[in-house]
Amino acid sequence: MLRLIIGNKAYSSWSLRPWFLLRQAGIEFEDQVVPLYQPDSREALLRYSPTGKVPCLIDGDLTIWESLAICEYVAEQFPEKQLWPADRALRAEARAYASEMHAGFFALRQHCPFNARRQFAPREWPADVQSDLVRIGQIWSDLRRRHQHLGPFLYGQFSVVDAMFVPVASRARTYALPLPELAQGYADMLLDLPAMREWYAAGAAEPWVVPGSEP
Amino acid sequence: MLRLIIGNKAYSSWSLRPWFLLRQAGIEFEDQVVPLYQPDSREALLRYSPTGKVPCLIDGDLTIWESLAICEYVAEQFPEKQLWPADRALRAEARAYASEMHAGFFALRQHCPFNARRQFAPREWPADVQSDLVRIGQIWSDLRRRHQHLGPFLYGQFSVVDAMFVPVASRARTYALPLPELAQGYADMLLDLPAMREWYAAGAAEPWVVPGSEP
Repeated sequence: MLRLIIGNKAYSSWSLRPWFLLRQAGIEFEDQVVPLYQPDSREALLRYSPTGKVPCLIDGDLTIWESLAICEYVAEQFPEKQLWPADRALRAEARAYASEMHAGFFALRQHCPFNARRQFAPREWPADVQSDLVRIGQIWSDLRRRHQHLGPFLYGQFSVVDAMFVPVASRARTYALPLPELAQGYADMLLDLPAMREWYAAGAAEPWVVPGSEP
Repeated sequence: MLRLIIGNKAYSSWSLRPWFLLRQAGIEFEDQVVPLYQPDSREALLRYSPTGKVPCLIDGDLTIWESLAICEYVAEQFPEKQLWPADRALRAEARAYASEMHAGFFALRQHCPFNARRQFAPREWPADVQSDLVRIGQIWSDLRRRHQHLGPFLYGQFSVVDAMFVPVASRARTYALPLPELAQGYADMLLDLPAMREWYAAGAAEPWVVPGSEP
């Protein structure tokens, strides 16, 4: 069976991406949490992943690291799940969004670290965070407007792009980030899915306390 | 015909990736340089790319941004070029390396900005740059050791992974970065290809002078 090595569900946004992809797509797998921010975390992770980072997917003899590469692998292995849009042009666009998320939105990631256990009051954000948020709001609103007649996800049916963006939806809730209405509706829909409720419940129950991240 | 919008060949490492992929694979395209670091650069780029960043590929009605997404698109559109390894496990590994490059090696990228017009003397580098270099050296040496009987590239024949890593080879030359012997041989081979000579010659001839980047 597929085995996904991840960090704390409370804190690891990168781990959430392939976990959510697999769970939401109904693909059988087991997960294994390697707690981050512990003295032996890096050593423990290097046993699985060549970069010493989460997530990594183990499929028999094969180890795949990097969340986007894991998503591509899962999409290839389970073509019946149609995890990329079937249309050539939409698939190219979807990959551009996935890559943009994979390598971008630094300000948002830096100022609003993923935290599934807390909620903060609204506040003012630096200009670079605001500009990341504007871009996210545009992407989600535009895709929802174009595909809402096909289903609730960014391309109508669930795809890798939703999995890549789901930690941003989570951050938006944690930090009460302002989003346009269509984008807010999409974020709420994602976080209300059984898969995300399961992730949050598991994150809440984790025993590890990380200084600076806990109330 | 495919049209690739790129930044200055002298400075834009992200632009080099898909440009090198297309040129080395012998795919016909035209490129268009939008000079970076000019007062109207962002405005000029937003005419082509939704993120206002280079590179972006224009194929008829379709615009694709993000270098990795462009590489995936080109690999899909030209299957006869075999731009990903044909083997399922090697392809998954290759995508992990491509993603690792796409979203990582920050210290190396920050301290050694791409510059096709200059060469610097060796010097001491901060620990995080050294650790990026160690990882690069390991990846290239390991892949060369495994595949050198198949050809001169990381997976024997040319693939997206070579295109993703070629700016690092260029930085290694610009900043006289130390690499293990097998990795150094690979970097030299890449930079000696006609496609890379063409890129360097065009970069050297560009009229735009960017303060801080020129001798």
